[in-house]
Amino acid sequence: MIAVLRWGHRIPRDSRITTHVALTARAFGADAVYVDTEDKELEETVNSVVRRFGGPFEIKTGVNWREIIRGWKGTKIHLTMYGEHIDDAIQRIPQGDILIIVGAEKVPKEFYDLADFNIAIGNQPHSEVAALAVFLDRYTHRKGLRKEFSGGEIRIIPNPRGKTVVEEHVSRRE
Amino acid sequence: MIAVLRWGHRIPRDSRITTHVALTARAFGADAVYVDTEDKELEETVNSVVRRFGGPFEIKTGVNWREIIRGWKGTKIHLTMYGEHIDDAIQRIPQGDILIIVGAEKVPKEFYDLADFNIAIGNQPHSEVAALAVFLDRYTHRKGLRKEFSGGEIRIIPNPRGKTVVEEHVSRRE
Repeated sequence: MIAVLRWGHRIPRDSRITTHVALTARAFGADAVYVDTEDKELEETVNSVVRRFGGPFEIKTGVNWREIIRGWKGTKIHLTMYGEHIDDAIQRIPQGDILIIVGAEKVPKEFYDLADFNIAIGNQPHSEVAALAVFLDRYTHRKGLRKEFSGGEIRIIPNPRGKTVVEEHVSRRE
Repeated sequence: MIAVLRWGHRIPRDSRITTHVALTARAFGADAVYVDTEDKELEETVNSVVRRFGGPFEIKTGVNWREIIRGWKGTKIHLTMYGEHIDDAIQRIPQGDILIIVGAEKVPKEFYDLADFNIAIGNQPHSEVAALAVFLDRYTHRKGLRKEFSGGEIRIIPNPRGKTVVEEHVSRRE
């Protein structure tokens, strides 16, 4: 299981960025995103994408981040511009259950110790959305981006010159 | 030269996302970002990162996007979830001068024709920040993230357990 923990989410300041974090998690192969601050609107936005484009993908907001980190049985990765360069560390990160911690602004010092790895997607300031995308892309060996979703109503067919959208209405027989 | 054109920037709605787009462009090896709407605050934010963390990197806002696209001599790439999957197209994209067009929300139909390639970083909805990061990472063969910047005051040394920041004050002899 691949899960993402978004820490430090503030409404409305981070609404759009955290939405991008959540959708990036889904699109690059993660199974769930947990957000520390309760945000029903964010949940609805993400769940509406799951209904339309498919799942499974879970969002939980208002979670106790300490409990999630301490209770996590797999590997804990903290993404930070201060960490080891991804290319120098990726070989040492085991495959298996993984929790990726993505902060908004400055994070508590304890994150650096609670994590098994502090990983920098380059040591320059940029974006937690970019960092999460590239981490998942590397970690899944580019396969995250090929994930097949099921149960959605809309599917996009790659098109070099326009838009091809297939609407799939599942007929249910009782 | 690698340049990024951000289209459809609206203040204040897109302020943070466009900041992430610009910083991602810089951190992943682009040389410049052009933004269609004039935004002095955005310019100042990005220029302050360049002063502190180094350059060269250029930001221009309030540009005429049609002139930039039409006048571009190299390859024009439009990033869109409707395009060809990056992994199916990257081999055909020539190395050399490249303009990467990143829209906010729905873009005019003409973008699909003006571009040499319409490229999807996966055909799922996520984030233009994520799309730009992964495109640059693939296009530069991961070297964008290793770019060396010069003239900055701050340098981050990778650290697996905390923060190591070196402040470099250049002494000037007259």
